Amino acid sequence: MKAYEQMTKEELLQEQEKLQKEYKGFEEAGLKLNMARGKPESAQLDLSMPMMDLVDSKSSCLAEDGTDCRNYGEMDGLPEAKKLMAEIMECEPEQVIVFGNASLNVMFDSIARAMIHGVCGGKPWGQQGKIKFLCPVPGYDRHFAVTECLGIEMINVPMNEDGPDMDMVEKLVASDPLIKGIWCVPKYANPTGISYSDEVVRRFAKMKTAADDFRIFWDNAYCVHHLYEEPEKQDKILNILDECAKAGNPDRVLEFASTSKITFAGAGISAMAASEKNLEDVKKIMTIQTIGHDKLNQLRHVKFLKDRAGVDAHMMKHAAIMRPKFEKVEEMLAEEITPLGIGSWISPRGGYFICFRALPGCAKRIVALAKGAGVVLTGAGAPFPYGKDPEDAVIRLAPSYPNMEELVMAAKVFICCVKLASVEKLLAAKN
Amino acid sequence: MKAYEQMTKEELLQEQEKLQKEYKGFEEAGLKLNMARGKPESAQLDLSMPMMDLVDSKSSCLAEDGTDCRNYGEMDGLPEAKKLMAEIMECEPEQVIVFGNASLNVMFDSIARAMIHGVCGGKPWGQQGKIKFLCPVPGYDRHFAVTECLGIEMINVPMNEDGPDMDMVEKLVASDPLIKGIWCVPKYANPTGISYSDEVVRRFAKMKTAADDFRIFWDNAYCVHHLYEEPEKQDKILNILDECAKAGNPDRVLEFASTSKITFAGAGISAMAASEKNLEDVKKIMTIQTIGHDKLNQLRHVKFLKDRAGVDAHMMKHAAIMRPKFEKVEEMLAEEITPLGIGSWISPRGGYFICFRALPGCAKRIVALAKGAGVVLTGAGAPFPYGKDPEDAVIRLAPSYPNMEELVMAAKVFICCVKLASVEKLLAAKN
Repeated sequence: MKAYEQMTKEELLQEQEKLQKEYKGFEEAGLKLNMARGKPESAQLDLSMPMMDLVDSKSSCLAEDGTDCRNYGEMDGLPEAKKLMAEIMECEPEQVIVFGNASLNVMFDSIARAMIHGVCGGKPWGQQGKIKFLCPVPGYDRHFAVTECLGIEMINVPMNEDGPDMDMVEKLVASDPLIKGIWCVPKYANPTGISYSDEVVRRFAKMKTAADDFRIFWDNAYCVHHLYEEPEKQDKILNILDECAKAGNPDRVLEFASTSKITFAGAGISAMAASEKNLEDVKKIMTIQTIGHDKLNQLRHVKFLKDRAGVDAHMMKHAAIMRPKFEKVEEMLAEEITPLGIGSWISPRGGYFICFRALPGCAKRIVALAKGAGVVLTGAGAPFPYGKDPEDAVIRLAPSYPNMEELVMAAKVFICCVKLASVEKLLAAKN
Repeated sequence: MKAYEQMTKEELLQEQEKLQKEYKGFEEAGLKLNMARGKPESAQLDLSMPMMDLVDSKSSCLAEDGTDCRNYGEMDGLPEAKKLMAEIMECEPEQVIVFGNASLNVMFDSIARAMIHGVCGGKPWGQQGKIKFLCPVPGYDRHFAVTECLGIEMINVPMNEDGPDMDMVEKLVASDPLIKGIWCVPKYANPTGISYSDEVVRRFAKMKTAADDFRIFWDNAYCVHHLYEEPEKQDKILNILDECAKAGNPDRVLEFASTSKITFAGAGISAMAASEKNLEDVKKIMTIQTIGHDKLNQLRHVKFLKDRAGVDAHMMKHAAIMRPKFEKVEEMLAEEITPLGIGSWISPRGGYFICFRALPGCAKRIVALAKGAGVVLTGAGAPFPYGKDPEDAVIRLAPSYPNMEELVMAAKVFICCVKLASVEKLLAAKN
């Protein structure tokens, strides 16, 4: 195979004709495939069905301390649910509040709370002028939607293979007191799949911030979501809570996690981990906002997952379903795209995404072509604040939802679209 | 029995001595009873246990339209859950959004959203100066806590036997554009137990408001919570959504309800009903805040309660547990308190509370005395904004949580404390 860059105009035209025929075939097949969202496949959800029978008698509705989980109370979560979520987040139960089914909601509420009430006694963010968040890019579109929705200005920070560009982060947070936060997915990042190095985590913990009420929003969404069983193929990150405490900045971080991609995407439990001071600050408002979250579901999770060993064993069942899909897509890309020099990605060892980097200026066209052939991809630009990818190059692939057969077909369409858009671009450059 | 008012100082001193002895007996008994919160008794929770077995296989996790309720999606609720909640709230499914386990959270979020984003395109409440809410009193302490927490000034409006003093409400909302809302529990009100008359509902719908973005927070928490089966003993209220629409003010009201006191207090489902315009306004932010609420629990509720007839039949089982308790407390009060002229209440035909009105200046003392004898009551003042009962007279009694034996003992203690505080007050007046 010859790289497209090295092709003559004539060769490119020939290639284009061939690709157009292939594309037409896909169009005519009337496909309806979706690689847009990090949504578990049905077989993954089946793994947690035994959970549904564990809380179905009066006695099984009682928590360890005798609390009747059917009734009101236990606003910040059952003790055993805190313990479970602490094991997942690798921190102490005392550092945890357990919430409802969606950690996104907890993050939204945390920022809304800061806007209205301020953070730990500080002036409400909403009264401090135009506040800003740092957004490592590419990142998670729903994070950026939250900050945009709440009127917060977003500043792009490049992502490297070991985490955000910390030189830039340190410089910005040290100089601007209106920078109040940064979005981080520190492990198997959405969408790049990389994990933060120890050095990056330590720099986060140690850096000087101009704002006292600066908080790191540490969305540890994929903390136990490995694709491989071999320890050497599992990413490990430093514990940010510990590092912040060691560095004398114990209140700097709010960490989030959920079981959405452990048990049920729509009916898991979520948690925040933070310093005592931060938790008190959260609970002060939380006690007004709710009487408590669904403790029966917390109990179900505890009875089913039991402890970290139980979680790890369960996650390997997910990995057995996910791994072949990731490997298949990567194999197809490596075979079809790499030799042509029209795209690259970092092999993820966990999480839910493959982050494809196309030739600059091609992402939107690829997504549009795929849509035309019946394959829905995450919108080009989505992994960037305001939906604007400055290079129009990044496409997030989510291999989890389709079954293997559908996935292979979707990947074929995607590959054809990448080639087609790349040829178009190179031809345009030659005119 | 002689009314205390008519007793001489000597008679009162004699009575006091007798009561002090009785009180001492309670103190020594080391009681631990609670009539503070509207919390269902364990036997009421048992009524919904069959619900826990209804969603436990892959096929039983599918909604009517095939949606896999274990996965992400259906942000505003399952269609069949909307239908169920619409039947409970007596409106159309199109007027409903289904949320998580706590309607309080939905109310908090609705006001927080208005503070940050405004209502239906209006200026954010938080940027309009010191905004205000009308608070019919006595009312629900958690409502007042929400508005206080969000920095909203609260104005007391007296409650009559047919609803809030509408002359005052109409006058205030017509003249002050900073009055943005009013808290209402229109049926079996917390804590007075009264239901709003048709006239009151119509005046709410028709009244002129100085603020375009004024909203009625219609917390229909006890909409199906009758104590009696006979239709003539069940309160009925007009449908506020219909009345507002008829009056040309379709967007005036946000209605809330939940199954917290139908199925499980800690693990029910909640809903908002409102006009299309209001729902669109809510969903615009909601879609950023969450991917969706727990649909498995929504499905469980639909399968268990089925429809309005199913709900009504189920509520009669609650009534069978609750009614004897309410009647017992009222019987004891009627026997022991009424003849002494030291307290009154309105007989509730539904809901969770008996609202006792003591002699002015006695409520705090009664609550303190009861606490001293091991009976926790709702704090005096709690049913008022800022916890301040101007007359120090109202005490909310919640007979639901204790079993009958405990309740009788708690009521005995309460009655003794009412008498004792009343004697003290009358004696003080004679000095």
